Amino acid sequence: MNKNIFFKRDGPFLLNDLFPRLNLEKKKIYDVKSLEKATSEDVTFFDSIVYTNFAKSTKASYCITTEKLKNYLPKSCKSILVENVLFTVCNITKKFYPNADLDIPDKSLKKPKKSSYPKVIFANNVLVGKNCKIGKNTFIGSNSIIEQNVSIGSNCIIGSQVVIRNSIIGNNVIIQDGCKIGLKGFGFIPLKEKNLRFPHIGKVIIGDNAEIGANCTVDRGSMNDTEIGKNTFLDNQVHVAHNIKIGSNCMVAGQVGFAGSSTIGNNVSIGGQAGVSGHLKIGNNVKIGGGSGVVKDIKDGTIVMGYPAVPLKNFLKNLKK
Amino acid sequence: MNKNIFFKRDGPFLLNDLFPRLNLEKKKIYDVKSLEKATSEDVTFFDSIVYTNFAKSTKASYCITTEKLKNYLPKSCKSILVENVLFTVCNITKKFYPNADLDIPDKSLKKPKKSSYPKVIFANNVLVGKNCKIGKNTFIGSNSIIEQNVSIGSNCIIGSQVVIRNSIIGNNVIIQDGCKIGLKGFGFIPLKEKNLRFPHIGKVIIGDNAEIGANCTVDRGSMNDTEIGKNTFLDNQVHVAHNIKIGSNCMVAGQVGFAGSSTIGNNVSIGGQAGVSGHLKIGNNVKIGGGSGVVKDIKDGTIVMGYPAVPLKNFLKNLKK
Amino acid sequence: MNKNIFFKRDGPFLLNDLFPRLNLEKKKIYDVKSLEKATSEDVTFFDSIVYTNFAKSTKASYCITTEKLKNYLPKSCKSILVENVLFTVCNITKKFYPNADLDIPDKSLKKPKKSSYPKVIFANNVLVGKNCKIGKNTFIGSNSIIEQNVSIGSNCIIGSQVVIRNSIIGNNVIIQDGCKIGLKGFGFIPLKEKNLRFPHIGKVIIGDNAEIGANCTVDRGSMNDTEIGKNTFLDNQVHVAHNIKIGSNCMVAGQVGFAGSSTIGNNVSIGGQAGVSGHLKIGNNVKIGGGSGVVKDIKDGTIVMGYPAVPLKNFLKNLKK
Repeated sequence: MNKNIFFKRDGPFLLNDLFPRLNLEKKKIYDVKSLEKATSEDVTFFDSIVYTNFAKSTKASYCITTEKLKNYLPKSCKSILVENVLFTVCNITKKFYPNADLDIPDKSLKKPKKSSYPKVIFANNVLVGKNCKIGKNTFIGSNSIIEQNVSIGSNCIIGSQVVIRNSIIGNNVIIQDGCKIGLKGFGFIPLKEKNLRFPHIGKVIIGDNAEIGANCTVDRGSMNDTEIGKNTFLDNQVHVAHNIKIGSNCMVAGQVGFAGSSTIGNNVSIGGQAGVSGHLKIGNNVKIGGGSGVVKDIKDGTIVMGYPAVPLKNFLKNLKK
Repeated sequence: MNKNIFFKRDGPFLLNDLFPRLNLEKKKIYDVKSLEKATSEDVTFFDSIVYTNFAKSTKASYCITTEKLKNYLPKSCKSILVENVLFTVCNITKKFYPNADLDIPDKSLKKPKKSSYPKVIFANNVLVGKNCKIGKNTFIGSNSIIEQNVSIGSNCIIGSQVVIRNSIIGNNVIIQDGCKIGLKGFGFIPLKEKNLRFPHIGKVIIGDNAEIGANCTVDRGSMNDTEIGKNTFLDNQVHVAHNIKIGSNCMVAGQVGFAGSSTIGNNVSIGGQAGVSGHLKIGNNVKIGGGSGVVKDIKDGTIVMGYPAVPLKNFLKNLKK
Repeated sequence: MNKNIFFKRDGPFLLNDLFPRLNLEKKKIYDVKSLEKATSEDVTFFDSIVYTNFAKSTKASYCITTEKLKNYLPKSCKSILVENVLFTVCNITKKFYPNADLDIPDKSLKKPKKSSYPKVIFANNVLVGKNCKIGKNTFIGSNSIIEQNVSIGSNCIIGSQVVIRNSIIGNNVIIQDGCKIGLKGFGFIPLKEKNLRFPHIGKVIIGDNAEIGANCTVDRGSMNDTEIGKNTFLDNQVHVAHNIKIGSNCMVAGQVGFAGSSTIGNNVSIGGQAGVSGHLKIGNNVKIGGGSGVVKDIKDGTIVMGYPAVPLKNFLKNLKK
């Protein structure tokens, strides 16, 4: 049972207390986790046919799901049938993590003591929260904020006016001025008068040698993590939504946007202002032309362009019509 | 005559002094206002056929307009005929509001005194201007700037490195890190050597329970206000130009852009990177697909997609060609 | 030989030491410069047929290029043949400018002394590096950072939370809140494990009366400068990549993006969210519709729209199909 270093978890709770209207056993539940990460002590959830493969092999003993999807679950996993899976998951997760749906500013921020970080170079007016780890020879630019429990490797350059929360950052990483890394994502259950915000208990993980351009935003994951792979470079004003996983050695040009929960392979290059819709799988060695709108999965090695994006030769053929 | 709390107004001026070349009466004029807001003591302006309905019922006694448009005005409203309506309005408005065309930094900013805001939670290095109102249990994140006369409700969370000016913000509002709210918009009369900047005497009004994602920009109105309705959520890096009115319960995904003066209804959802052109009317319950470019009005309940955006079934039909 | 005020240059180096595997003379080389700027004491480079006109008239005595391109060079310029021109240029430039490939935060930043800048108006917590020049009546907003050697003219308004480095800014310029000006651009040689970053020894030059909206990013040039002409206005969230040259009297609406090394003429207007690809030449008096994707050169006076952008009448004709 790995610990969440960024969000305090309450519990365990008894299953029949979590779902008082259903006639469930008194089993202790320790956490809510995604299908692939849940253990037999956790409850999981299954809300879309896209995740069938993960469902089939989940280790969870209970899964919040629907009548339609329940048969994909293994026998070891009992289904808890509800009408709106995400609404239920949202409420259950809030019980375990009551502070993960809002980004309340870190009240532990202080000017860092030279004695606590002897090998870190801080520019002016830097603020650091409690329990941060920052590696040697890392520079932190002026007016930047590193919130509690964040970990940053060695030889990194963090620019000015950056905010980093809920993140684990490798070595030799560059994050340019004005980036906001690790905020909660755009996830909520729409309700009249007051939407229900989805807890974001995930983090942001940035691999060694990665680079993030100026004024980018990288949201942390909701139930899983947001990941940017080793040696992947993002240009300015890129938006990476919650739960996105970008592989290694990718090149992402300016103003590209990723909607939530897509997976991008390795060695992918994406032209400026392109957009990638949510819940897609983009293979390795893919090239996406500038301004494209990707709305379908893309296989390894494909070059696509257009809105919606299609293989390049189709795009060029359509132009000639 | 309601007062402009953000911009000092000079005057009243005599009508014949405002328009010295025209042979007008010596009537005292107190303000320049839009067609629907002007009283008999104000001068108004009418520059586009789009606003005919407002023109027909204006209460103003004088209106800056053109030969072509003057006949839509009621008899109670005398027309002042000019060649370039906006050029004239720009110059007249500058007489009433000499400081509204530039965003000169607020010189009254100070570290807020705990005694002045006993129930507000300020993080580090917050700066607050004079005459601000901030409700109880509102958090203001580190390095954020709240300029003079701004009003923020209770239970709000304002992130780090935010700037708010010329704005009135409701209760339970969330504004994430790096947002710039209430700046002057992109309005000017193009002139060789030195463009003439249009005064921005409007404000930004944000309703209860709204949320604005990281690094968004929301410009204040020029003659009217920019409004974001109750329980409307904006994702990261959204740009809301001057005079935009977004209704309640809307969902606006990342990197969406709104050009000036459009009206968006209630319960509208807009996908990532979509753009809405200026001076449009988007109805209630509209859905706009990601990456779309909206260039026409959209009726209630319509789903549109594409560039330019068309009803979804037309978009899908065109794809098959 | 004009001096680079922002980056310390090492050297001169002997040509045969710079290219030890080639059998070259012992000539002293003082700098690496673009084809049009190099003198007989510099080495230059020629990597694309696009720059043939500059190649023909270069004053450099040595040019890094390829077998295919070498014949365009004048007899006075000897070619140094390599497989990957930019890889070689990157490495040679790093010898001359060892600190230009990273944006290490300026350690000379301090709260400016009133006595050093008696006619400048500083808001709160401003940081200024050594050797900056700031003209009279210029305002610098709160929490803004002006790094070493930056020059800003008179009567400018720099907003809050701005970062400016490696830039020369004219008079009467407005830079709104949150802009990041003069950072290194998105230029590197992709390598497995660790990309090779291209040095950015250029600067940003902004002409008189220009305006840059909130949260924009303007990268400095790599070998040349990035330029924004007189009286050109940029709206919010615009991204200007390295080596872009925008002429005078242009209007660039919100969220527009420019990829690297394109030249934009005078009196050009560009609608919101449009994108301009790299290495293009956009003429004078061009109008580019909102959301367009420009992938080809555009002649003077043309109106274009679409993705990819085509002359407006073709765009409208295609819509009717």
